[in-house]
Amino acid sequence: MAIKTSTIRLKTTASTDIIDISSQVDSMISDENGLVLLFIAGSTAALTTIEYESGVVNDLKRAIEKVAPQDIPYEHDQRWGDGNGYAHVRAALLGPSLTIPLVDGKMLLGTWQQIVLCDFDNRPRSREVIVQIHTVG
Amino acid sequence: MAIKTSTIRLKTTASTDIIDISSQVDSMISDENGLVLLFIAGSTAALTTIEYESGVVNDLKRAIEKVAPQDIPYEHDQRWGDGNGYAHVRAALLGPSLTIPLVDGKMLLGTWQQIVLCDFDNRPRSREVIVQIHTVG
Amino acid sequence: MAIKTSTIRLKTTASTDIIDISSQVDSMISDENGLVLLFIAGSTAALTTIEYESGVVNDLKRAIEKVAPQDIPYEHDQRWGDGNGYAHVRAALLGPSLTIPLVDGKMLLGTWQQIVLCDFDNRPRSREVIVQIHTVG
Repeated sequence: MAIKTSTIRLKTTASTDIIDISSQVDSMISDENGLVLLFIAGSTAALTTIEYESGVVNDLKRAIEKVAPQDIPYEHDQRWGDGNGYAHVRAALLGPSLTIPLVDGKMLLGTWQQIVLCDFDNRPRSREVIVQIHTVG
Repeated sequence: MAIKTSTIRLKTTASTDIIDISSQVDSMISDENGLVLLFIAGSTAALTTIEYESGVVNDLKRAIEKVAPQDIPYEHDQRWGDGNGYAHVRAALLGPSLTIPLVDGKMLLGTWQQIVLCDFDNRPRSREVIVQIHTVG
Repeated sequence: MAIKTSTIRLKTTASTDIIDISSQVDSMISDENGLVLLFIAGSTAALTTIEYESGVVNDLKRAIEKVAPQDIPYEHDQRWGDGNGYAHVRAALLGPSLTIPLVDGKMLLGTWQQIVLCDFDNRPRSREVIVQIHTVG
């Protein structure tokens, strides 16, 4: 039984970024069985999986924009002047954590299923995605 | 410490299916302590929990239809002609993984809380839900 | 390798409550490496993370109210008369579980990222959040 904790570091932009991190996660895995825990430290970003092609990525951005539009008033912005109230709401709705089973060194993702960081913030950020691998034997 | 990985196989329809898989997960559990990781391989389905009665199930379908309607244009469909852009968006919003604590061989679900697969795709699919049980002692 | 399961007990109100439980989770952690699994037993509540300040909390409530309004008809309510159909839908959309990496006794949350229970039910409830800590060596 072992636990290994690593970090993926990413630069993001002032727009909503949906970034495929699958190959970076994959490079941290050896020939093991267990689970991969992914966690985004921060309250204006989230993790999920998606078929990573630009059509679907834009479709997801449009759906999230409808649920928590950038151009309506937010109490957070009135209080703190950050202008990123929409980003906090989106992140809370999607959630910060993902867990993926690992068998013989392969994450059991679907063929068209990639792991993505969704960064909603309205300024460029240096992001840290935590990758924690729990393995046995 | 042990990790056991199993698969639940399910046939779904061309409509949105919300399927209770609690008893199938339950049948894979022995008298153990740890956690159950559930993961749906694929980018047009998701996992969550709900009180499994047809009223709430229909209410959930209606809410998801409002967030990502089937009858609006999606870039994914314009590009690939699949017609399931809505399904990709819904799956990304709900997420593919669930983790449930296990104590003395029982998942600590609420009395009215069932585990469901939500399959949004517009064609029948053969689905595989991965069930990975992490136990100790 | 060890697994420790504890419970946080909370009283909630008949309105939507978003309650910061970070310090209670923190008090259950020793100087360990591993993960913290959080799970809410029940089908009308959910867990997520957010910057816990009242502006964002109200913004999140408003966004969720738009996705699953309290004042539209729900089949669940027509069938069971509970009046909490909206709460079931919200809980299913947000999800019941969270997993957080733990390094040297610290959860790797962002500086402005707190763990919250979202209780959507329309009557006061006694809630149990399960906290399961998986650690090694």
